[in-house]
Amino acid sequence: MTYQELSRVELEALKKELDKQFDEVKAKGLKLNMSRGKPGIAQLTLSMPMLDVINSQSDMNTVLGNDTRNYGDLDGIGECRKLLADMMGVNKDNVVVCGNSSLNIMYDTVSRSMMKGVNGSTPWCKLDKVKFLCPVPGYDRHFKITEYFGIEMIAVPMDENGPDMDMVEQYVNNDEAVKGIWCVPKYSNPSGISYSDEVVKRFANLKPAAEDFRLYWDNAYGIHHLYEDKQDEILNILEECEKAGNPDMVYIFASTSKISFPGSGVSAVASSIKNIDFIESQMTIQTIGHDKINQLRHARYFKNIDGLNEHMKKHADILRPKFEAVVNTLEEELGGLGIGTWTKPNGGYFISFDAMEGCAKAIVAKCKEAGVVLTNAGATYPYGKDPKDSNIRIAPTFPSSEEMEEATALFVLCVKLVSVEKLLQA
Amino acid sequence: MTYQELSRVELEALKKELDKQFDEVKAKGLKLNMSRGKPGIAQLTLSMPMLDVINSQSDMNTVLGNDTRNYGDLDGIGECRKLLADMMGVNKDNVVVCGNSSLNIMYDTVSRSMMKGVNGSTPWCKLDKVKFLCPVPGYDRHFKITEYFGIEMIAVPMDENGPDMDMVEQYVNNDEAVKGIWCVPKYSNPSGISYSDEVVKRFANLKPAAEDFRLYWDNAYGIHHLYEDKQDEILNILEECEKAGNPDMVYIFASTSKISFPGSGVSAVASSIKNIDFIESQMTIQTIGHDKINQLRHARYFKNIDGLNEHMKKHADILRPKFEAVVNTLEEELGGLGIGTWTKPNGGYFISFDAMEGCAKAIVAKCKEAGVVLTNAGATYPYGKDPKDSNIRIAPTFPSSEEMEEATALFVLCVKLVSVEKLLQA
Repeated sequence: MTYQELSRVELEALKKELDKQFDEVKAKGLKLNMSRGKPGIAQLTLSMPMLDVINSQSDMNTVLGNDTRNYGDLDGIGECRKLLADMMGVNKDNVVVCGNSSLNIMYDTVSRSMMKGVNGSTPWCKLDKVKFLCPVPGYDRHFKITEYFGIEMIAVPMDENGPDMDMVEQYVNNDEAVKGIWCVPKYSNPSGISYSDEVVKRFANLKPAAEDFRLYWDNAYGIHHLYEDKQDEILNILEECEKAGNPDMVYIFASTSKISFPGSGVSAVASSIKNIDFIESQMTIQTIGHDKINQLRHARYFKNIDGLNEHMKKHADILRPKFEAVVNTLEEELGGLGIGTWTKPNGGYFISFDAMEGCAKAIVAKCKEAGVVLTNAGATYPYGKDPKDSNIRIAPTFPSSEEMEEATALFVLCVKLVSVEKLLQA
Repeated sequence: MTYQELSRVELEALKKELDKQFDEVKAKGLKLNMSRGKPGIAQLTLSMPMLDVINSQSDMNTVLGNDTRNYGDLDGIGECRKLLADMMGVNKDNVVVCGNSSLNIMYDTVSRSMMKGVNGSTPWCKLDKVKFLCPVPGYDRHFKITEYFGIEMIAVPMDENGPDMDMVEQYVNNDEAVKGIWCVPKYSNPSGISYSDEVVKRFANLKPAAEDFRLYWDNAYGIHHLYEDKQDEILNILEECEKAGNPDMVYIFASTSKISFPGSGVSAVASSIKNIDFIESQMTIQTIGHDKINQLRHARYFKNIDGLNEHMKKHADILRPKFEAVVNTLEEELGGLGIGTWTKPNGGYFISFDAMEGCAKAIVAKCKEAGVVLTNAGATYPYGKDPKDSNIRIAPTFPSSEEMEEATALFVLCVKLVSVEKLLQA
C-alpha cells in the first residue's frame, strides 16, 4: 500500500510513530557525511604502493630520455599521455596531460573561450548572451563554473538513456548563443546512468548554429565500474564526431582522481588535433609545464590500461557493498510506498534519489538535524534550484559500511517522515 | 683601448682575425643551450632524497589530522603554508599554497581580473584600455601573459636600484588605465639587481589612480643567493604597503621550482586577507584543491626556513662557479673594449649583457650559427622588441662548467665580431 492510499488517521498515526523513531536516532548524536564523492580510507590505501615507485634511486628520465625533474614536455610526458589516451579511448596525439584536476582544465577551457573565443571565434565576453545546456540532475561544480562566468544555464531533463535529445537538438541547432553542454556520459553524476548509443550518435550528429559550440564531455567515471559482469559501455564520442563531420565538436575530460589519489592524480583533455593545438597555444602562456614526476609515477605504477583496470577492480570490491547496502535499504524500507524512486548504478560515485515533489529540502534538513550531512538539495540543478525540489544526491563512498547503514537508515526515516507531513498538508 | 678608438684599417685586420677564430669554433659543431633558466643536473640531484620522504609507509595526515590523500584544504595544508609563508616573509594566514607553478597563479590572477575585476572593481575586459608597466629588461613570460590578454605594456627602464620610480609614480598616480606592474624585486630576471629600500618604499607609497592597481611582485629568487657573505635583502613589501595605508596593493608570488624541482615544486601567493579571500572565491570554482601530497613532501623534507636556506647553500655551491666563469670571461675578454656592459649578480639565475646598440640580434644569430642557443634578443622587452637591440640574457645554470666555458668563449667572440662589423658600417 502506498502512502498516498493511507487515510488521514492512518497518516497521523504513522507520523507519531516516525517522530518517535526520529527522536531516538537523533539522541544517538550521529556525525556522518554523505555529501561529497570522496573515496574512503580503504580506497586511498589501495594506491599507497604507488608512492614507492619513484624514489631517490629512480631513473627520472622518460622513455624518450627527457628528465622529468626539469622544465619541458608542456603537453605531458609520452608514457603518461599514452596511459591516459588508452583510458580515454583516443590516440596519444589527441591528449594533453595536465595537473591534478580535470575540473581545472574545464574551468580553463571555459575561461579561455570567454576571453579568446574558440579556435578564432568571437570571445564570449564580447557577446550579449552565452548559454550552456545542463542535463539534470547534474554535477554542481560544472554548473558553478558556467554560473561564475555569467553563462545562462538551461536545464535539460535526463532519462535512463541520457539527456532529452529532442530538446538538445532544438537548442543547439537553432540558437547561436548555445555554446556548450555539460555531459557526464558514463555513470553520470549523480544518476549513475550511461548514455545510450543512440544518444551519443545524436550528440555527434548535432548541427550547431554556433561554430564554437562544443560538447564538454566529462568522462569522470570511464573505468569506474562496480561489477565485473555488469559494465556499461558508451560509444567513442571523438570517433563518432569525426564520422559525423564534426571532428572539432568535443572536448573529453578525465582524471585519475578517483583511481590514484584525489588531489594528487593526473588529469587530461582529449580532442581533435586542431583543438589541442589551440589549447596548447593558451597553455604555453599559462605555465611552463605540469608536474611530470607525478606523471612518471602514474605511468610506471599502472603501466598500461590493463594495470588501470586491475586497480579499478579493487576499488569496485570496496565500493560495491556500500552501494548495495544503500540500494537494498531503499528497496526494503521505501519499496512500494510511492514516496521515492532511486537509481541502481553499475558504476560511478553516486545514487540519485527522487523524493515526492517539494520534499527534498525538508529531507536534507531533517537528516542534518540528526547529524547526517547530505549534498544540499538543489545542488544537482543549475543555480542550485531544483524546480520540483525533489532530487537528492547520495554519495555512499566515503563513510564506512557501518556508518553507511546508520546514515541510510536515518535517510529512509526522514523520507518517510517528510512525505507523511507533506501528505498531511495536502 | 676601446674598439671605438681603432682605425678602419685596424678594425678590418681585427675582423679578419675574428672571422678566422669564428670559423674554427664553428667547425667544432657545438650544441649548447644557454637560453632558459633551467637548473643543471647537479642541482636536480640535490633534491632527490625528497622523493623518499613520502612512501607507502608514511603517515599521510597533516599536523592538523587532515588526510592529504583526499579532497580538502583548498588553500594548502597548514605546514606547507607555514613553510612558504616563512620563505616569503609573511604570516601563514596571508598565504595560499597552490600547484606547481607560480606563473600559473600570475596567469590566473590577471585572467580573473579580466573577467571579474579586482575585489569588486569593473572587469578589465569591459574597459577600453588596460595598461601594465613592465620594468626592462624583464621576464619574457610575464610579458607574454599581459600580451595574451591584450593589455598594453609600457616599458620602464631599470637601473641598479630597480625601476625608474619617477616614471612609475607618474604613470600609476595619474593614469587610471594602469592596473599593474610586473616586478622581480630580488635578483631580478635578467639583470640580477635587487630593489633598494627607497624603491620598495616608493612602491608601497604609490597613490594609484586606479583602485584595482596592484603590484605583481614575483619574488622568484627570494632565497636564491650565490654567496654567503654577499646577500641582497629587500624590504618586506606587504609590511611596507600596510604601513603606507595600501594594505591590498600587492600580490607576492613565489615557488620552489628552483629549490626542489621545476615542474614538481609548490607555488604560493601572498597578499592581504581581503585579497586572499577574493582569490579563494575564484579558486573554489576552479578546482577542488591542489596536490597536497606534494605539499606534505615539501613540508616534511625542508621542515622549516632553516632547512630551505641550508638547501639553497648547496645550490649556490653549484651555481657560483658557473656565474663566476661567465663574468670572469666577460671581464677578461671584453673589459675596457667599450663594446658591452654586464651585471655581476649576487643571486638569481641570470646575467644581463648590454651590447652596443643594434648588435644584440646579430650576436644571438652569430652564436646560433656556431651552435650556441641564447635567449632571443628582444625577449627581455615587451612584445619581444628591444628598442636599442642591445640586451641579451645569459642563463649560465643549465650547461656544465666545461660547456659554459665553451659557450662563453664563443659568446665573447661573437660580441667582438658583431661590434667590429657594426663599427665598420658606421
